[in-house]
Amino acid sequence: MMDTLRKGRILLSLTGWSPDVWLETLRHEAPDRDIVLAPDHAADPNIHYAVVWKQPHGILKDLPNLKAIFSIGAGVDHLFQDPHVPDVPIVRVVSPDLTLRMSEYVVWQVLDHHRKGQAYRDQQRRCVWREDLTQKSADEVTVGIMGLGHLGLDAATKLQALGFRVTGWSRRPKDVAPYITLFTGEAQLGAFLGSADMIVCLLPLTPETAGILAAPLFAQMKKAGPDFAGPILINAGRGGLQNEADILAALDYGALAAASLDVFESEPLPASSPLWHHPRVTITPHAAAASSPAKIIPPMVAQMNRHDAGGPLTDLVDRTAGY
Amino acid sequence: MMDTLRKGRILLSLTGWSPDVWLETLRHEAPDRDIVLAPDHAADPNIHYAVVWKQPHGILKDLPNLKAIFSIGAGVDHLFQDPHVPDVPIVRVVSPDLTLRMSEYVVWQVLDHHRKGQAYRDQQRRCVWREDLTQKSADEVTVGIMGLGHLGLDAATKLQALGFRVTGWSRRPKDVAPYITLFTGEAQLGAFLGSADMIVCLLPLTPETAGILAAPLFAQMKKAGPDFAGPILINAGRGGLQNEADILAALDYGALAAASLDVFESEPLPASSPLWHHPRVTITPHAAAASSPAKIIPPMVAQMNRHDAGGPLTDLVDRTAGY
Ligand SMILES: NC(=O)c1ccc[n+]([C@@H]2O[C@H](COP(=O)([O-])OP(=O)(O)OC[C@H]3O[C@@H](n4cnc5c(N)ncnc54)[C@H](OP(=O)(O)O)[C@@H]3O)[C@@H](O)[C@H]2O)c1
Ligand SMILES: NC(=O)c1ccc[n+]([C@@H]2O[C@H](COP(=O)([O-])OP(=O)(O)OC[C@H]3O[C@@H](n4cnc5c(N)ncnc54)[C@H](OP(=O)(O)O)[C@@H]3O)[C@@H](O)[C@H]2O)c1
Repeated sequence: MMDTLRKGRILLSLTGWSPDVWLETLRHEAPDRDIVLAPDHAADPNIHYAVVWKQPHGILKDLPNLKAIFSIGAGVDHLFQDPHVPDVPIVRVVSPDLTLRMSEYVVWQVLDHHRKGQAYRDQQRRCVWREDLTQKSADEVTVGIMGLGHLGLDAATKLQALGFRVTGWSRRPKDVAPYITLFTGEAQLGAFLGSADMIVCLLPLTPETAGILAAPLFAQMKKAGPDFAGPILINAGRGGLQNEADILAALDYGALAAASLDVFESEPLPASSPLWHHPRVTITPHAAAASSPAKIIPPMVAQMNRHDAGGPLTDLVDRTAGY
Repeated sequence: MMDTLRKGRILLSLTGWSPDVWLETLRHEAPDRDIVLAPDHAADPNIHYAVVWKQPHGILKDLPNLKAIFSIGAGVDHLFQDPHVPDVPIVRVVSPDLTLRMSEYVVWQVLDHHRKGQAYRDQQRRCVWREDLTQKSADEVTVGIMGLGHLGLDAATKLQALGFRVTGWSRRPKDVAPYITLFTGEAQLGAFLGSADMIVCLLPLTPETAGILAAPLFAQMKKAGPDFAGPILINAGRGGLQNEADILAALDYGALAAASLDVFESEPLPASSPLWHHPRVTITPHAAAASSPAKIIPPMVAQMNRHDAGGPLTDLVDRTAGY
């Protein structure tokens, strides 16, 4: 046993997922570390790193030699729901595989709305052959991306390559490619919303963003008119960003023309939710960008090794900002 | 009248489409030309150019001073169905707008299959929340493009940007971007088909390609297996390329997992076609890349003016090859 302790132990704590494949991958990638499962090691001084997805609250607070926490996932809202997260660096997932999968989801849903997938599927069901001559070209459509981080910026590149006009909204000013029209902060949110035909939300869930996708925001979006069927909402950020009652109401009174939702206030989405049966809602089960242990674990272990050797950690979370 | 005849007349001949918007756009773009409608000008010596979509057969053969024929559309199979097409240059549409629309269609359909759109829509109908854990990443999927011309090459670029592996099949060897694996001619068709997870057909309809999407071709495609649900066919070339009875059979005996068809042997697709109701067939009504007169007519008129001034015509059709 001592031999594998040449390097500090890794604590693995998952809720809702089976740990098997994660354990196996960690063991394979870090053969020189002992991997232990929570909750049996509450005060183990040999634990140097924790790898977590929705850890039970308090489980990390008594580890005397914890050097860093690794979130399995780009979002860390699950982690901060625990009020007892110790004050060590928190590393999030930044993975080309996850990013590409999210951009696939975004492009897929943007195109399905742009190219009237639902209308053509309805026609097919009724054996109706009728081309929709109001089909716009991509350069007549502005896609506004809320949250221009790792995921939002990559989605922007892919949408621009298809000819869409792209705008984005971030918390702070930043340098972005010239084809992205950038809006920043609360002050520019209205202008951002009012100029987009489709809104793609890739925000993190933080105290500032919680519940943002609600009636007051929909009221600032572009209005339907003779040349515009109404704005589309695509949310693949987190369910906590959205107010589902407000989304349903907005669909019904016309503030929203349609929505694609990958995330929900409560997951799995309860069978009783009227979202399931709304003809203009597309539901996927938090599947927009599921990456695999094989892609996520190796860079984590590389970070641990680099950190042990005195190097810096990257992809760190800003605790104050909450993401 | 003589005044507008400073430049030669344009004959417009359309079947199946209302000429109004085309006439109007031609008049607007070529105010110095007289635009006349077939079939009233069968032997008019003042007609220098013909703009056609499925012209009535023989209508072009007695125009003594016809200098060139312009096809409204990238494909010219409609034109060659007329055995009396005079021996003048034939110009086809090459339009960034049309190309982008086709790439949208291709990316949309590739992603809808790749991301299991049909399965998730079925789940939604049944209020089922279940992520498909077999979701591959794009770099595990090879999209083979049959017909690497203006449209196929652009679609390849867009698919590659999303991470897909891309192969292509053309009639002749050609220089292509290094990320495209090129197969050429009859001899390499089998290798091309056997290595693709999805086939996107953007071939022109010619005597050589007619009916190519049929049982013998499907038999050379990749076989379904434990890690592969079976190949997908996407055809947006022409309906004459496909044998619909064979497609239905291939879907049923497993040679094809699914198909997206924008074009059909007979259009509109008859209500009696079993394709409408097949759960793994996605039908659009020849809507993949409809461009507008406003985008197509101006470059045509520019070509006429350049040709009148002694310049060369571009985007010419090779009559022997048939495209
Ligand atoms: N559905 C899924 O399968 C799935 C998968 C992975 C991730 N996600 C979600 O996607 C989110 C984004 O991931 P990411 O990697 O792109 O995160 P990121 O790199 O941290 O980017 C977050 C972006 O949101 C902006 N932002 C944060 N708070 C804001 C505020 N109050 N006002 C305006 N803008 C704000 C940030 O602005 P600055 O640029 O100014 O910092 C940044 O542009 C994750 O947090 C996660 O919730 C979902
Ligand atoms: N559904 C719609 O809305 C829609 C809209 C527009 C166009 N289309 C169709 O799309 C087709 C393609 O348009 P495009 O502009 O890309 O045409 P293109 O530039 O002429 O390209 C045709 C491609 O097909 C290849 N090809 C032709 N005959 C072949 C054969 N016998 N074997 C192997 N490859 C062969 C050519 O090979 P080489 O490179 O060796 O010449 C070329 O790569 C049009 O002809 C039209 O039918 C459909």
